[in-house]
Amino acid sequence: MRPTLPLTLLALSLSACANAPIQAGAPAAKAPTTQEVIDASTAADWRPLDPVNTVYLQLPSGMVVIELAPEFAPEHTANIRTLVKGRYFDGLSVNRSQDNFVVQWGDPAGDELALRRPLGEARATLPAEFSRAADGLDFHALPDPDGWAPQTGFVNGFAAARDPKAGKAWLAHCYGTVGAGRAMEPDSSNGSELYVVTGQSPRQLDLNITTVGRVVVGMERLSVLPRGSGPLGFYTDASQRVPILAVRLASEIEPDQRAQIEVMRTGTPTWDAYVESRRNRSDEWYLHPAGHIDVCNLSVPVRPIPKPAAAG
Amino acid sequence: MRPTLPLTLLALSLSACANAPIQAGAPAAKAPTTQEVIDASTAADWRPLDPVNTVYLQLPSGMVVIELAPEFAPEHTANIRTLVKGRYFDGLSVNRSQDNFVVQWGDPAGDELALRRPLGEARATLPAEFSRAADGLDFHALPDPDGWAPQTGFVNGFAAARDPKAGKAWLAHCYGTVGAGRAMEPDSSNGSELYVVTGQSPRQLDLNITTVGRVVVGMERLSVLPRGSGPLGFYTDASQRVPILAVRLASEIEPDQRAQIEVMRTGTPTWDAYVESRRNRSDEWYLHPAGHIDVCNLSVPVRPIPKPAAAG
Repeated sequence: MRPTLPLTLLALSLSACANAPIQAGAPAAKAPTTQEVIDASTAADWRPLDPVNTVYLQLPSGMVVIELAPEFAPEHTANIRTLVKGRYFDGLSVNRSQDNFVVQWGDPAGDELALRRPLGEARATLPAEFSRAADGLDFHALPDPDGWAPQTGFVNGFAAARDPKAGKAWLAHCYGTVGAGRAMEPDSSNGSELYVVTGQSPRQLDLNITTVGRVVVGMERLSVLPRGSGPLGFYTDASQRVPILAVRLASEIEPDQRAQIEVMRTGTPTWDAYVESRRNRSDEWYLHPAGHIDVCNLSVPVRPIPKPAAAG
Repeated sequence: MRPTLPLTLLALSLSACANAPIQAGAPAAKAPTTQEVIDASTAADWRPLDPVNTVYLQLPSGMVVIELAPEFAPEHTANIRTLVKGRYFDGLSVNRSQDNFVVQWGDPAGDELALRRPLGEARATLPAEFSRAADGLDFHALPDPDGWAPQTGFVNGFAAARDPKAGKAWLAHCYGTVGAGRAMEPDSSNGSELYVVTGQSPRQLDLNITTVGRVVVGMERLSVLPRGSGPLGFYTDASQRVPILAVRLASEIEPDQRAQIEVMRTGTPTWDAYVESRRNRSDEWYLHPAGHIDVCNLSVPVRPIPKPAAAG
């Protein structure tokens, strides 16, 4: 039931970097394109993932890299670390795939408590962490209005929302946002059941459930999973479940075996230029620049860590 | 290359109807849930699909039902009908699947014009149909603001946007919206290359490309297709392409062989109640009603055509 496979980092797909190359030396007569912003970025515009907040989810199809958000869900992310270190997830499965909504993984025993795998040293219930105090966050607001919240923006790579009057902030449910499934009671989640958004941003979930992180690389290993034919997209046949081979924290892995990736910082002038390149596309193909961007239309760029340049 | 398979209507998945049943006779102490709205609807709240505007796309995994939007793209939808009747699509393939963006199908020869299948009686180029006059449309506006357009709403089942000052309307790029791929020139599309949105609503495409319809049933047969590893999600290996077995207009099929489905009308009090049930979820699970809905978060309900009740 619980394979103790060595965690091999399979080929990571960095689709965010797969844009068409721009011809070098072409005059920049107009606002830079996304690719031009990325090409002009410096090392300081990128950050590594913190190994203690990075989770590797190994599926038969390859690796998914998840970044935890302890700033928003300290209790849940701590519990997820405990679950991972206890090898709770190894040998469990993806049990649900609902089209245009979520993919969910955890214990296939579901509500059959007697059959469920013990949580080990992890806690069975946690306080709901649907929002937090807005103070103390490095919230970088977007220039455009949002219909679901008074403000949206990014906090250290995470799509977020803020209500200045109420003094609250929370993660926005966007494509790739990871949350902790719960039952009817607000405090019924513990991080052992996790879901990821695979469709149109279900912002109605905001402030109704605890979000714990985001998928950085490998969304396509989750988003293509066959949709379940049961209610809510649960697989009706155990054979349809996708096995979870192993889940590890990056901090449990030797540094040279970790995913050698970095992500764009979201509070810099380069980030602002990136946002603007998405608000008003200057690529030749676009005739009508939108003049708007939704927080859930912004993917934080990811790239392989560049090799150090040789001394000249 | 061109199979002439009889078009068998495989089991259609009507996931929009798969909500949990509500206990009959329970008192409605609060605003009705989505399921309660659907349960309380009458026959007049539903409409059939027009067979001349309904396209059946048969993939190895089953059927996709697409509704064309001649009100928004009369030239393109007419050309698509001509292409379908000429059996242009039969034996072509799905050639592109880009995560969180689109799946695209048509001639795998792509830009290699000499290798492309002839269009038969269809036209090679058409005028761009990126928007149309707002006048003359049964536009049913949503109550909430939209960041991408002055107004959003529905026109006979289609998610749409409107600019009253400019007197223009267009289809919104939502999950399931179908459009006609184009090259750099605005008038370079003809409906032989089609794409469907499979991720977060890419509204930046609005007003930049011609939209021709929407997927009514079978999105999950397109959304799960493996992502292509080439630029823009194109499959790099011909063996990865998914064959299109056949494409037919419903009007080409005997009535009893057509998909026996109907869709909710989008300009009725029942539709307004449905929208409200999505704006403010009254399901017990929700603690925080959003008080907002985005045009791309509303799926138009689909159901099997009910059997006529026996006379009493």
